[in-house]
Amino acid sequence: MNNRYRLLIETEDKKGLIHQITGAILKRDLNIEQNNEFVEKRHNRFFMRADLSGEPNGSLLEDLTNLLSADRIIRLVPKQKKRVIIMVTKEHHCLGDLLLRYKYGELDIDILAVISNYDHLRSLTESFNVPYHFIGCENADRAAHENKVLEIINSYECEYIVLAKYMRILTPDFVERYKDKIINIHHSFLPAFIGANPYRQAYDRGVKIIGATAHFVNNNLDEGPIIAQSVLSVNHTHDAEDMARAGKDVEKQTLARALRLVCDDRVFIYKNKTIIFE
Amino acid sequence: MNNRYRLLIETEDKKGLIHQITGAILKRDLNIEQNNEFVEKRHNRFFMRADLSGEPNGSLLEDLTNLLSADRIIRLVPKQKKRVIIMVTKEHHCLGDLLLRYKYGELDIDILAVISNYDHLRSLTESFNVPYHFIGCENADRAAHENKVLEIINSYECEYIVLAKYMRILTPDFVERYKDKIINIHHSFLPAFIGANPYRQAYDRGVKIIGATAHFVNNNLDEGPIIAQSVLSVNHTHDAEDMARAGKDVEKQTLARALRLVCDDRVFIYKNKTIIFE
Amino acid sequence: MNNRYRLLIETEDKKGLIHQITGAILKRDLNIEQNNEFVEKRHNRFFMRADLSGEPNGSLLEDLTNLLSADRIIRLVPKQKKRVIIMVTKEHHCLGDLLLRYKYGELDIDILAVISNYDHLRSLTESFNVPYHFIGCENADRAAHENKVLEIINSYECEYIVLAKYMRILTPDFVERYKDKIINIHHSFLPAFIGANPYRQAYDRGVKIIGATAHFVNNNLDEGPIIAQSVLSVNHTHDAEDMARAGKDVEKQTLARALRLVCDDRVFIYKNKTIIFE
Amino acid sequence: MNNRYRLLIETEDKKGLIHQITGAILKRDLNIEQNNEFVEKRHNRFFMRADLSGEPNGSLLEDLTNLLSADRIIRLVPKQKKRVIIMVTKEHHCLGDLLLRYKYGELDIDILAVISNYDHLRSLTESFNVPYHFIGCENADRAAHENKVLEIINSYECEYIVLAKYMRILTPDFVERYKDKIINIHHSFLPAFIGANPYRQAYDRGVKIIGATAHFVNNNLDEGPIIAQSVLSVNHTHDAEDMARAGKDVEKQTLARALRLVCDDRVFIYKNKTIIFE
Repeated sequence: MNNRYRLLIETEDKKGLIHQITGAILKRDLNIEQNNEFVEKRHNRFFMRADLSGEPNGSLLEDLTNLLSADRIIRLVPKQKKRVIIMVTKEHHCLGDLLLRYKYGELDIDILAVISNYDHLRSLTESFNVPYHFIGCENADRAAHENKVLEIINSYECEYIVLAKYMRILTPDFVERYKDKIINIHHSFLPAFIGANPYRQAYDRGVKIIGATAHFVNNNLDEGPIIAQSVLSVNHTHDAEDMARAGKDVEKQTLARALRLVCDDRVFIYKNKTIIFE
Repeated sequence: MNNRYRLLIETEDKKGLIHQITGAILKRDLNIEQNNEFVEKRHNRFFMRADLSGEPNGSLLEDLTNLLSADRIIRLVPKQKKRVIIMVTKEHHCLGDLLLRYKYGELDIDILAVISNYDHLRSLTESFNVPYHFIGCENADRAAHENKVLEIINSYECEYIVLAKYMRILTPDFVERYKDKIINIHHSFLPAFIGANPYRQAYDRGVKIIGATAHFVNNNLDEGPIIAQSVLSVNHTHDAEDMARAGKDVEKQTLARALRLVCDDRVFIYKNKTIIFE
Repeated sequence: MNNRYRLLIETEDKKGLIHQITGAILKRDLNIEQNNEFVEKRHNRFFMRADLSGEPNGSLLEDLTNLLSADRIIRLVPKQKKRVIIMVTKEHHCLGDLLLRYKYGELDIDILAVISNYDHLRSLTESFNVPYHFIGCENADRAAHENKVLEIINSYECEYIVLAKYMRILTPDFVERYKDKIINIHHSFLPAFIGANPYRQAYDRGVKIIGATAHFVNNNLDEGPIIAQSVLSVNHTHDAEDMARAGKDVEKQTLARALRLVCDDRVFIYKNKTIIFE
Repeated sequence: MNNRYRLLIETEDKKGLIHQITGAILKRDLNIEQNNEFVEKRHNRFFMRADLSGEPNGSLLEDLTNLLSADRIIRLVPKQKKRVIIMVTKEHHCLGDLLLRYKYGELDIDILAVISNYDHLRSLTESFNVPYHFIGCENADRAAHENKVLEIINSYECEYIVLAKYMRILTPDFVERYKDKIINIHHSFLPAFIGANPYRQAYDRGVKIIGATAHFVNNNLDEGPIIAQSVLSVNHTHDAEDMARAGKDVEKQTLARALRLVCDDRVFIYKNKTIIFE
């Protein structure tokens, strides 16, 4: 499998574009095994994800760079596990699910480490042979705490940071540094119930469906590009605690699904929304 | 079937309550064919819906009134079609669906009339032999327009008013007059995207799921008790118009479902939420 | 819109194929507005659906025919309404739904006529200004009855025949004549509950989910290529009649969804399965 | 919580039944906190599940026994964790999910032990401090193997046996011994695709939805009373292996859901079907 790559392109759409791109691929004697394209009409933007067989090299990127307009993103990504750091607070359900999937190769991730502002999930994490870093935030100000977190993160070479029920808000600096690299699971069907205690809010409003949202994090709370959402029916017999309990299953499924999409290089971010080739 | 009634009770919970109520039913030689109960623990409130066979009469209500605490609602409802007026603007999908269900007895409703602020849906309505009242709002102020609407409504004896995509906001007076009797279909998964153009809002936010909400109308826009909600997956290939088109199917299904629940006397309203015995 | 076409290709996969095809399109000065491709690995089979702008003509087909291997299907389909005949027995729900969608242009279909072995749905059909042909089957043998049906069908130029709860089994001759052109809605989640009375079968088995299946008809009962399936939760309070009633909503939604996919030329049939570009 | 019990009754329905039962409860000075009833009309059978507060004792059972007809089941069940043994083969996903839920108290179960015909899942199991019994079946006949399994089971006092992807068929003797006590997860939407390789069967048939079924085991393969079913959409891009992978998530969710219902004493078995108070 090591000789297989994915080609990811975002560029201005124009007549003959696919022909040009596939010509460049053919010229390097590569084959397209599976291909997805999408044109966003409003901004005339072209997106493409191609599974290549053969051995692509820098020449392909060079050729494509010459072909396409200046305003473009071209990436050649090896099909291999994404290197991930997970951040948690006290809740176990998303972490436990990800650790199991990691252990058995259900997701194409390497979990490099778990970082938490509590020590609660150490034994769970370590039973999967994953390093656990407890960085308390009790007597630390936000910046000082984050600096310690960053120090840990920097000691690994991670590609994505997964907030698997990490209940502290990150500073704009932190978010900016890992732009498009932080994935969060929010325990509501965004944009309903932004902010704290969404299950309490849902209970108070008397909704009949609750949900979870996996999204990239940007600097506006819970307003980053949405990757995946799922829902669950509830009724009058559920109080806020029942909803929270039931919601956990949806949260972990939604986060795992989002992570699978990201790890398979299926997710493009464009203008605070996602284009996802499923 | 005419000799079958539903007994609907809302009252303070207390020890021995079911025994008392069922004793009163037995005393009048009635049988409980199917029974649902719920206790809302937070406010110690008891709800019951019982299908009775036999011929209940006023004595049962009298007995129950004497048994229960002063703060209670007791209703004995005949199992028969609810008398409904439908209000629409220009969109046909909810109206068409309800007219079909009415014609073939799929819902226990009698559609007495359709009222609209446009004349667009006359031929559809009249092809089902239902009176259509067009009350234009072009040069009328809100109160004057509503007075004409009320005049029409008052000329029928209706039990419920169904807003099947009626796009004008009702005055507080109107709503108050038909408290707990107006059912609206809102084209979003409330409380997300309250107000105008929810599909445009959903598109702009890049959500992966859209929905519809059927609810009773109270005086705060889109904030009345929710009866039913349904959702639909969307993705980056859907623009706002696609979402609106796809959403129509969810809207009409959700409204029909809500109406079925209401017509079967399954819905209790309590503290701006619903208790629904499904 | 009349100057827009869809190009549909099924052929053997080979290196450089997309480049060749898009080259032919470019040569005729056409633009690809949206494109979907799929390679079925097991049989090395390539499928493509492209929305073209510009004015394609026979030369494009000729060029493509020369390019591709002998075992291929190439179609250039104008984006216009499909001409459809609907066959029904007594049940109204699918027919009513399709007539409403036809009247308001929700589906890209022209309903040319409705044919039934009963006269029950005449008034519904005619109120939408669609011809209704009642061909009784009481004293006719299967072949004689079908001959009369075929006579009616032949008097129209239809592209698809939709069995919207047509409860008679078609002869192999009939099916063969309209190969890949007959769409049926079956009231179960196939392959569960093949044959008669699926809701009774579902009730007897005590399933917790029921469904509907829209599929092309081939000569083995309920075994043709599946286009769309949907499901609905049920429980112990539903008897077979409740399931049948609830199932109607799923049936009509599933049939409409399948028909939309077919009308948008999104469905390829290959080895008794469907490839659907959604 | 130790002073709380559930009263579970199955008996012949008759006029005044609820009044009688609630009278017996009231006589012992108990309160009904939440109550569910259902009457199966076809066989005139009454089912009831009541949450009681207060301290019930044998006298209540005695009173109820005297009140009800001879053909009845009356159980007074303490609200406490169910004692469960899990049987697995090689697949980890259901077991891992249940172990996590057990560790964190998400399900009211005590996992007493895991028994497997392979040694694969030992480290996973033991990392949760649960005993693991490997009983190979390579050179053992079915009866001899089962006898060893039974020996292990008998060394615990278990209330339920959960087949969490246990891929051997149990003998009628084994099943009979634990009648209504064995819960299986089957990797298809039963009754579709009974037997081996359901995902291969689903792929070959080209279905658009796959599912999982949790059911009690009786002596006819995959034909016991169904507790819970869930489904998942698939399409032409999924081969049988993709379906199997995607199906794992549905399997573990469905099994966990079924187990929750059973542990909460919500499931009655009647005539090879379940009545479930949700």
